[in-house]
Formats: sequence, structure tokens, C-alpha cells
Amino acid sequence: MGPGGIDKHRWQFEAADENRAELDAIVDAGAFVMGRNMFAPGRGEWDLDWRGWWGEDPPYHGPVFVLTHFPRAPLEMEGGNVFHFVTDGIESAFRQAREAAGDRDISIAGGASTVNQFLAAGLLDELRLHIAPLTLGAGERLFDGVPPLRLEQVSTRQTSLVTHITYRVIRA
Amino acid sequence: MGPGGIDKHRWQFEAADENRAELDAIVDAGAFVMGRNMFAPGRGEWDLDWRGWWGEDPPYHGPVFVLTHFPRAPLEMEGGNVFHFVTDGIESAFRQAREAAGDRDISIAGGASTVNQFLAAGLLDELRLHIAPLTLGAGERLFDGVPPLRLEQVSTRQTSLVTHITYRVIRA
Repeated sequence: MGPGGIDKHRWQFEAADENRAELDAIVDAGAFVMGRNMFAPGRGEWDLDWRGWWGEDPPYHGPVFVLTHFPRAPLEMEGGNVFHFVTDGIESAFRQAREAAGDRDISIAGGASTVNQFLAAGLLDELRLHIAPLTLGAGERLFDGVPPLRLEQVSTRQTSLVTHITYRVIRA
Repeated sequence: MGPGGIDKHRWQFEAADENRAELDAIVDAGAFVMGRNMFAPGRGEWDLDWRGWWGEDPPYHGPVFVLTHFPRAPLEMEGGNVFHFVTDGIESAFRQAREAAGDRDISIAGGASTVNQFLAAGLLDELRLHIAPLTLGAGERLFDGVPPLRLEQVSTRQTSLVTHITYRVIRA
């Protein structure tokens, strides 16, 4: 994550009870899409011993589609977590997640460049920001490369270590 | 401002009553510093007929130090507004504003690149964000070129057209 990167997650570890509603909402979806960095450090061919950041029971409890340039067989873990590795782009990942989710929502888990790709493609209905009180001075930035967006404010809540803002994305 | 630029100011025009506290706070300082774009369109030598965006009684009611590469004599307007044009950089503008403000705060009025320069120089104690629900897809970005910052959340308030967040900047 780079220096200071862990600090933007402090609210999740040190104030989990206070932020329970937003933490629960993050993993309340029928399927998930994430960039490779959300699943693993590094680049290039997979180290098959790497099974994610979360231990044997990740918090998603459903199918997760990981965007990557390197094929890998699906990885089934405890609690209903199944990681699928998608090498043919975000539209494909979106379709697969949409199908796997049935009637439930699908969630783009991050990081910023993955969210930016989905925003640019017009595939998001809702954007949930969790704004930690620090800047890193480097790294991916939300909204880079994203065309103009019209949003509608849904809710804001400040807790001791983070400010949550949810927007609805208005179709043009 | 470019396409859509006026929309980020909708809350100021269409919901002024609802956002009265934050609007009053913006102009509650003993002196102000702003980038040239906050005072005038265009670049290069001054058009001396241009007297700012605000009419004859701008909302600052005090000395305003405008950063520019082009000298211009001070411009005195109604209501105690005096615009000074500073050609020797942000530290000079800061010193002059500090001196003019006496016991009162000084405010960096914007835009983003001016705020970024002051943040990078470690000259700000407080950062007030007014987050409008849209993106422009282009333009200056807050925090570009700014080293890592530690902030402390002071307050958050959402009104119908904007979300206000105030941070204290923690010295390293």
C-alpha cells in the first residue's frame, strides 16, 4: 500500500463498531468485482500460494471476480467465498458478476482505478465514499480519466475516523 | 470555468439560506489570498477595466491579495474591499495578508492550485471542503503535488446541494 496506506483503513480496524452499518454495506452484495491489487500484492504471474489478504474466510461470502492479465483457476475458500480471475476486461467481469448475483446488487470493491473504469463505462448506479482524514501524496486518484458525472447526494455520516458519503449516479 | 463549472456553485446561489453558516464563514477573515483565476478570466497583461466577478461591492470586505505574474496597482472598491496584486509568490502574499489581518484569521480563497501551494508549504491550519455532487472530468485537482497530510475531522454537514467537511491540518 505504500507508506501511510494502512492509515486510511484505521476506521475499519479501530472503530468497527461505530462504523458497523457502512462496513456491513460494503460486503452486502450478491457478487463483487475488484482490481488485482485488492486481492494480491505484486504483478505478473500468480504465486498460487497467495490466497488473498483476508485469511481463509474473507468477508465477501460470495463470488468475487478479480481483474487480471494472468489466468488462474477459481479459488474456493470458506464461507461461500469463491474468487474468479477474469482476463477479458471489466465488461466481462460485470456480466459474470451480474449473472452470479441473481436478484441482488453487485459491488465494485475497488481500488480507485477499477472504480474509475466502471464509472467511465457508465456501469455504476451508486458511489460510496469513505473519506479518511489523510492524504498520501501519491497513488491512484478517484475520478482520474472519468468523464463529467452528475451525482445526487444520498447520505453523509461522520464518525471519529472517517466520513461516509453515498451518491447516486444520474444517467445523462 | 469550462462546461459545468457554474454547477459546482449552485448551492451558493440556489440554496444560500440553507448554507448560510458556511457561506458566512468563507468571508469571515481579516484578509484573503486568491489565485488570479478567482479574480479574473484570462492570462497575460491586465485589462484594467476588469474589476472582479462580484460587482462594485465584493463579499470580502477587507484586503484581498491576488497572486499574479503581472503587476497592477491596488484596486479599492466599496465595502472595504481592496485588491492587492502580488507578483512575488505565495510566501509574500501570506506575509502581507498576515500583517493586514491583525488579530483575525486569514483565508486562502482558492482556487485549487493556490490551495495546493499553501498546503504544500505547510501554511494552512484548517481546510474547508464544499463538495458539490458532480465531477467536471478536467481541471485543477485539490491535493495534486501536495505531500502526505495528516488531517483531523472537525465537522461534516450535508445540505441539499453540497456536503461541507472541515479538517484541521495536523503539523508533522
